[in-house]
Amino acid sequence: MGRRRRGGRRGGPRPRPGGGDPAEEEQLSPARRPTGRRPGNPGTRAAVLDAARAAFAERGFDATSIRAVATAAGVDPALVHHYFGTKDKLFLAAIEAPVDPGTLLPEVLEAGPERLGESVVRLLLRVWDGPARPAGLALVRSAVGNEWTARLLREFLVSQVLRRVVGTLDLPPAEAEARGALTASQLIGVVMARYVLRVEPLASAPAEELVAAVGPTVQRYLTGDVALPGRRD
Amino acid sequence: MGRRRRGGRRGGPRPRPGGGDPAEEEQLSPARRPTGRRPGNPGTRAAVLDAARAAFAERGFDATSIRAVATAAGVDPALVHHYFGTKDKLFLAAIEAPVDPGTLLPEVLEAGPERLGESVVRLLLRVWDGPARPAGLALVRSAVGNEWTARLLREFLVSQVLRRVVGTLDLPPAEAEARGALTASQLIGVVMARYVLRVEPLASAPAEELVAAVGPTVQRYLTGDVALPGRRD
Repeated sequence: MGRRRRGGRRGGPRPRPGGGDPAEEEQLSPARRPTGRRPGNPGTRAAVLDAARAAFAERGFDATSIRAVATAAGVDPALVHHYFGTKDKLFLAAIEAPVDPGTLLPEVLEAGPERLGESVVRLLLRVWDGPARPAGLALVRSAVGNEWTARLLREFLVSQVLRRVVGTLDLPPAEAEARGALTASQLIGVVMARYVLRVEPLASAPAEELVAAVGPTVQRYLTGDVALPGRRD
Repeated sequence: MGRRRRGGRRGGPRPRPGGGDPAEEEQLSPARRPTGRRPGNPGTRAAVLDAARAAFAERGFDATSIRAVATAAGVDPALVHHYFGTKDKLFLAAIEAPVDPGTLLPEVLEAGPERLGESVVRLLLRVWDGPARPAGLALVRSAVGNEWTARLLREFLVSQVLRRVVGTLDLPPAEAEARGALTASQLIGVVMARYVLRVEPLASAPAEELVAAVGPTVQRYLTGDVALPGRRD
């Protein structure tokens, strides 16, 4: 991943101002940097994150590529890879996610499918009872007030959390989607009731008591007998 | 409820400016109306609603009286009764509730305790799939962004919805509170997933499919075998 790679221009059929290789721009054609997007420049990073937010919100996580984000930001895809690594990590940086579910979920899945409900609720509460809460609350507040951020939070839940949890169950896609969405409805509801609205006794109850009460609901949604809803097309 | 009743002053032991009978003030002592709070004046109504919001948010629904709201607004309690009727109705007006659960819940309860879960989810979706949705969304947005409105929405859920539903089950208070709060967590989660974040297939599924999927969860929370959480005092 050559931040300083000196390849030729990598633009698509429609080259745009500032769309060339940033390393090339920096060293060969300083006059072509009207926005000052140097590698290492905080402005470059911010431009990539802006472009990423717009792309993920408009097209969703799956249909967005690092290349498309780079083009929109007017930088080289290699630079985006260099700064952010994978598309998952670019997405987490774009929404300022307080935690990376990819690093937390393996321990959730360890307990096995028959304890998945409890494990998911336990992890949710561990994250929200910890130092990530203010950032989590900020994300929820922003999502509720703004259609665009709502789409980003939905993409986060679907692509970073639910798909990873439900993906371990080896289900047909429509069933995986439905079980994931039902799970989401209960998890979001716990966050809202405990941390936002502070409905008692959920607001002050020990986490393990909530795990015991809500875990079976999530377990039913994930693996139990449920009349699954489907999209109305 | 004499809006024009000419009784003596009704202040408590600590009379305050503007705290007398408003009818008396209007007709007998115009010089004592610095804020122009005449009965029938939109400013009077707004002052009562402001005072009500403050009182309900600070002290909660149960600990707030019409008399205290009237005192804070500088009007006679009889005027508040005249404008708004009961404390429930004053509260609904103060939070601009799009519906009055008191008029909707009787049909929910008709189905009997063993169908309560389904009935509650069905009513929730009927209200939110109908013309009240924009006002409901505004209330949720406001509650998530603002600690004060969050308390008002919590008081709404607890005093106007959950207590009425759970109240039919004749449970000890702590159990009623816990079952009501768990129910709230699932209902709020459905609202968030279907209407705010629009997670598919919950966003577009027919209401009855959600009733079939989520109703059993609510039924378990209301009447089933649940390890109930308790307040940590």
